[in-house]
Amino acid sequence: MVFREPIPGLEDVPIKYTRITYIDGEKGELYYRGYNLVDLFNNSSYEETAYLLLFGKLPPSNELEEFKEQMFEGRKIALEVIEEIDKLSIKNALDRIKIGLILASKYVDSWPKYVGKRVIVDSLLVNVPKILGLVHAITAYAVSLDPTTIEENLEATCAELLCKSLIKSCEQKHIHALDKLLIVYADHGLSASAFAATVVASTLSNLLYALEAAISALQGPLHGGALEKVAYMLENISLEEVEEYVSKKLAQKEKLMGFGHRVYKTYDPRAKLLKRLAAKFAMSNEGSKVYLKAVALELHALRNLAVKRIYPNVDFWAAALLLIMGVKPENQLPVFVYARTVGWLAHTIEYLENNRI
Amino acid sequence: MVFREPIPGLEDVPIKYTRITYIDGEKGELYYRGYNLVDLFNNSSYEETAYLLLFGKLPPSNELEEFKEQMFEGRKIALEVIEEIDKLSIKNALDRIKIGLILASKYVDSWPKYVGKRVIVDSLLVNVPKILGLVHAITAYAVSLDPTTIEENLEATCAELLCKSLIKSCEQKHIHALDKLLIVYADHGLSASAFAATVVASTLSNLLYALEAAISALQGPLHGGALEKVAYMLENISLEEVEEYVSKKLAQKEKLMGFGHRVYKTYDPRAKLLKRLAAKFAMSNEGSKVYLKAVALELHALRNLAVKRIYPNVDFWAAALLLIMGVKPENQLPVFVYARTVGWLAHTIEYLENNRI
Repeated sequence: MVFREPIPGLEDVPIKYTRITYIDGEKGELYYRGYNLVDLFNNSSYEETAYLLLFGKLPPSNELEEFKEQMFEGRKIALEVIEEIDKLSIKNALDRIKIGLILASKYVDSWPKYVGKRVIVDSLLVNVPKILGLVHAITAYAVSLDPTTIEENLEATCAELLCKSLIKSCEQKHIHALDKLLIVYADHGLSASAFAATVVASTLSNLLYALEAAISALQGPLHGGALEKVAYMLENISLEEVEEYVSKKLAQKEKLMGFGHRVYKTYDPRAKLLKRLAAKFAMSNEGSKVYLKAVALELHALRNLAVKRIYPNVDFWAAALLLIMGVKPENQLPVFVYARTVGWLAHTIEYLENNRI
Repeated sequence: MVFREPIPGLEDVPIKYTRITYIDGEKGELYYRGYNLVDLFNNSSYEETAYLLLFGKLPPSNELEEFKEQMFEGRKIALEVIEEIDKLSIKNALDRIKIGLILASKYVDSWPKYVGKRVIVDSLLVNVPKILGLVHAITAYAVSLDPTTIEENLEATCAELLCKSLIKSCEQKHIHALDKLLIVYADHGLSASAFAATVVASTLSNLLYALEAAISALQGPLHGGALEKVAYMLENISLEEVEEYVSKKLAQKEKLMGFGHRVYKTYDPRAKLLKRLAAKFAMSNEGSKVYLKAVALELHALRNLAVKRIYPNVDFWAAALLLIMGVKPENQLPVFVYARTVGWLAHTIEYLENNRI
């Protein structure tokens, strides 16, 4: 055994090569399976993007249909599970999703099959669309606590199902914005949550349990907490207070939520896309007040932070956009789970191709 | 960023220095906080060992009393949680425990507090005995599905509570053997389950969620599955079939469950202690048939495997001992959870001292 110094946080220690996501932090570019996120954002749906992330290519139309049908199967299974969750008093939406995943493990067999030390990845990929539909439906239920929305929308698009569960007056424009948001949040490499999923799956545990661990990691304030914190910040400060708030935070050398990223040294490409969407949305919406606050906050912050190469990250504009659409802060992390499940699954399965525990 | 080759399984990549467990694989020795496991096995209780693993020293008697009292508090909290679990139809004991942990998160605040980037470890350690009591009671319930055992044994020792939940005719000798087994299983370094807990906790997520992830990792057949598989093997083969079974497995170059260990190149010191215990136990018990089968299996296996430095590991003799005492295979992994929770907590908290996500 070669003695090595501990590497806290495993910084720069890759555990696998990845063909899923490529991030250029200097240029501010993000690629899914070789496709620039901007192109996918402009031209594809969340379903197509999910297929791309999982299977490595954009779907031929017949396969996309099959992919969607398997997702509908997963939603049907979720209805059984939801009946059980319904009996519990638990309030936190992410906790409800995790319990749903545990309860679902008796309906969906997603234990990796393997020959010798080699995991049969195909057997996992077959089940993955079903799992995606399952997680989506449980998540939609976890925010709305209303199973009828799922029953009535078994064959809706992912964005539509989410929209109807999340937003009271769900309209086409909300569905469109959510579809784009889901594309943006679908994956971002081996984050702490994706890594937690990978570690659990490395013992060949059920994929549903791997997702459960990813959500547990997401629940930590150093990970998913940022999105919620930005949302509460934007909700609680008035437009008049923004400048003073930013100055005070920076003078006290405190972190400004939603700003800065370990990898991006320029404007986060995801934040850029969501900001554009928020602007368009705010024009025709009562949420324009939130938009103005967000713009003002960014303006004051960048005056001081741009020289340090600190820019808004995805959480900043995602929280603003969701708030503009009327999504409460406590329901924003479930949207993250809904979108990112596909990334968690893709990384877990890619890791299992060459598993070594 | 220095480019590094991926290191699958992170073999030999430590993420922290540890002062908790030291393993000498060549000599076959295991130390908890500098104490040889053999000495702890002979002279201490599980409660003392748990205190040692968590706080780094053997407890003065007044602190041990306080430690136990906090565990009783945790058991009381568990009773609230158990009422909720009771409503669910879920059968698998580990799934029940995980759901219990999620439900318990509203009763026990075990989110790490921190100042700047530094986690206040003391604030975590204060809650840890309570968490230990909580996990123990939920686990005891998960195997017995009977809350009255917990109600009636709120102030029992850990081994006693486990024994009364697990074994119908629980006697003093069973309690004694379980106490020793719990000491042996209390920790074994940063295994996949301890690592999963650490990754989840690195985002400053709730310690209960970290434990939940550890159990999810344990559920994978490459990890906790071994214990169960040995138990089923010993249950299903007759004494007459043992020799043929072993020969066939070895001829087909298949893995013999419960044999071999990545670190120990000689007899696993834990297996040695448990074998001694099993022998003593079998003399006065109807389980002696299982003991004979285990001895025969070991004998035939070692004839071929000892030259390759492959010996029985802890799971082999733990499964045999538990089976001799009348613990069914499907209830053996919960015993692992019961014992190892202390190790998972110790490693998670040690990692958080210098957290870097």
